[in-house]
Amino acid sequence: MTSTVQSPDTVPDALREQVHGAARRARTAAGDLALATRAEKDAALHAMADALVTRTPEILAANAEDVDAARESGMTEALVDRLNLTAERVASVADGLRSVAGLADPAGEVVRGSVLPNGVQLHQVRVPLGVVGIVYEGRPNVTVDAAGLTLKSGNATLLRGSSSAERSNTALVTILRETLAAQGLPADSVQLLPCHDRASVTHLITARGLVDIVIPRGGAGLIQAVVQQATVPAIETGVGNCHVFVDASADLDMALRLLVNSKARRPSVCNAAETFLVHRDVAAEFVPKAVSALAEAGVTVHGDGPVQQLGGPGVVAATEGDWDTEYLALDIAGRVVDSFGDALEHIADHGSGHTEAIVTSDVRSARLFTSRVDAAAVMVNASTAFTDGGEFGMGAEIGISTQKLHARGPMGLTELTSTKWVAHGDGQVRGGS
Amino acid sequence: MTSTVQSPDTVPDALREQVHGAARRARTAAGDLALATRAEKDAALHAMADALVTRTPEILAANAEDVDAARESGMTEALVDRLNLTAERVASVADGLRSVAGLADPAGEVVRGSVLPNGVQLHQVRVPLGVVGIVYEGRPNVTVDAAGLTLKSGNATLLRGSSSAERSNTALVTILRETLAAQGLPADSVQLLPCHDRASVTHLITARGLVDIVIPRGGAGLIQAVVQQATVPAIETGVGNCHVFVDASADLDMALRLLVNSKARRPSVCNAAETFLVHRDVAAEFVPKAVSALAEAGVTVHGDGPVQQLGGPGVVAATEGDWDTEYLALDIAGRVVDSFGDALEHIADHGSGHTEAIVTSDVRSARLFTSRVDAAAVMVNASTAFTDGGEFGMGAEIGISTQKLHARGPMGLTELTSTKWVAHGDGQVRGGS
Repeated sequence: MTSTVQSPDTVPDALREQVHGAARRARTAAGDLALATRAEKDAALHAMADALVTRTPEILAANAEDVDAARESGMTEALVDRLNLTAERVASVADGLRSVAGLADPAGEVVRGSVLPNGVQLHQVRVPLGVVGIVYEGRPNVTVDAAGLTLKSGNATLLRGSSSAERSNTALVTILRETLAAQGLPADSVQLLPCHDRASVTHLITARGLVDIVIPRGGAGLIQAVVQQATVPAIETGVGNCHVFVDASADLDMALRLLVNSKARRPSVCNAAETFLVHRDVAAEFVPKAVSALAEAGVTVHGDGPVQQLGGPGVVAATEGDWDTEYLALDIAGRVVDSFGDALEHIADHGSGHTEAIVTSDVRSARLFTSRVDAAAVMVNASTAFTDGGEFGMGAEIGISTQKLHARGPMGLTELTSTKWVAHGDGQVRGGS
Repeated sequence: MTSTVQSPDTVPDALREQVHGAARRARTAAGDLALATRAEKDAALHAMADALVTRTPEILAANAEDVDAARESGMTEALVDRLNLTAERVASVADGLRSVAGLADPAGEVVRGSVLPNGVQLHQVRVPLGVVGIVYEGRPNVTVDAAGLTLKSGNATLLRGSSSAERSNTALVTILRETLAAQGLPADSVQLLPCHDRASVTHLITARGLVDIVIPRGGAGLIQAVVQQATVPAIETGVGNCHVFVDASADLDMALRLLVNSKARRPSVCNAAETFLVHRDVAAEFVPKAVSALAEAGVTVHGDGPVQQLGGPGVVAATEGDWDTEYLALDIAGRVVDSFGDALEHIADHGSGHTEAIVTSDVRSARLFTSRVDAAAVMVNASTAFTDGGEFGMGAEIGISTQKLHARGPMGLTELTSTKWVAHGDGQVRGGS
């Protein structure tokens, strides 16, 4: 029985088959990739970097079409800028691949080992996860970064980028795949999934048994949608409602420096501070200085009653919603708290488990804050901006996990691996019952 | 507005509120528990063990009611036996708590640490996960085991046992909670959830933000249902379609010993072998011996054509379904494979990622099998029965993870923790942009 018209039901099924077919090819590729040596993977990373540079005109031509289409569709210039590639940006992405080649290979590391009482030799070794799905928005550089990190850690990857970057991503992935094949590694280690239909995300994140992990990278909406619908294990990343708490004993000059750096260094990233809390004992002295230093950095303060009173007319009245807002912009909420305990409670109620900082001179406050606050990273007298794979010495990161399972905080190459127990015996059987 | 009749909609809402209320109390308890010292937790574990022994009559009386009700409802004697408690079983469960007290406390362990170039001191420390939900069937001893392991690792636990064990579980949890309170630890560290409605499982596994992890313990159906529906991160445990592959170079006497032990030592557990694969070069010699040794142990072989031919009339014809069946009984599937590669392919197609064993004398086969097979545990010349937290030296286990995220293989105390990055600085800010 044939038909020239597809029924509505066969259209999603065809897409499902397309995504799952890619996943099956990725599994096969992952099996081969897991056996590749570090030297082979590093050579491929360098070749990929070289190919990106050599074939830059091809990438820029594809990107120009994406940019034109985006402008025509009325995309804001800020978003167009995220989409836009230049020769410099391509060169920088290629350099990223070369740095990843320089990092240690996490696969094969022996995590634990022992000889059991019966003589069986037991090792727990790091192994690649297998097939890693990545769902992301906007920037085409993520395509290359993600491909590099997953390849180095021995994983095959299924990339589901945004439709606005389709031509750019296709050009990039074509170059990466051709280079992989030329290097004798499976081209299907890196695959781009269809991006015009939300259903391709759904098929990816429910391909249980075919895909080992899915990592959403993007705004809170994307992350929540993926985490809620996924049956494949998913890592929640990158939502950062981070606080800076200025304790009663804080060095207020230090507090000012840390607050401004935490907020204004790069307000669009997830480790930027979104609320400051000030102990009432130092509020009268600190708040006016803070509001003025923040204003100088272009930051608008959304304050509670006391902050408005102390901070002057530049302070906007905070609403309840402000305590839960990740501005990712030159805005910050501010509140005076009556006690250390109230600060902890505010953070427990409103924090997203990313990064929380205290400024204090009191060793007991520091100790209590680090043990009581439940977050991926807790800073004492240091900027929230340090929560970053590069800053933490991991060399690179694929995202920052704000959940507690598998990985918490910046995810580098090690966090893209699982483990396997390997036992060598000479015929040992287990007794007892 | 009041009403004496609950609308159908308010009934599930009331249950939801009951489960989520318990989860909120558990979160508060977890906050306090995370600050408890090892000495305090160990003292509580010993006190709990003593209380269980002292109050055994109360436990047995409740258990007798469960057992009577189960028999009345027509439960099989095998299941009634799993439900049944005796003074000896209670004593053994109490001893389990004492052994857990003797294990090292995973919380507080420094996993990694360094001083960053800017002088910030960075530590990655183990912390409790927080609130651990456990959904389990049958045996009331799981109630105490799970409470002990979660308490020791600093976690609060929400236990959702089977309705058939409700009276036993209630008696046990009452004793544990009263003891915790007497020891100055929060009683809400251990809570039993309503067990008469499947919806209580649903409310537990979708309580995202309130519950940090859910671990299903039971049959494949329960595990799949939890994993598919959960929005709380869930760990897939305990489904074991384990293979023993007898390579062409195998010492056949060793292979026989390992096969019988892997299958028949305790057929109802997840590390028991469910299929054997024999290389065709040794099939003629091995299969008849294997079938006869297995028959002696009471095991029925479900064989493919060659196994039926070589094994004689005692062999039952295998169907396609047999390769995917976790018998958990005195049955095993058997197949002759043409090559090492075919064995790998069979395992990749049908294995559940639990434990896979090879019997071989060839070092290349051993190396290829351990690197190619994708499972939590890979055994070379050792019984599949060794995949067990106790055997691996973890002291105890809460389950065996067959997934790749967070924990793979036996889950001991360490696997019940997450990590937190703690940074101490003296005012460092981040430069660059």
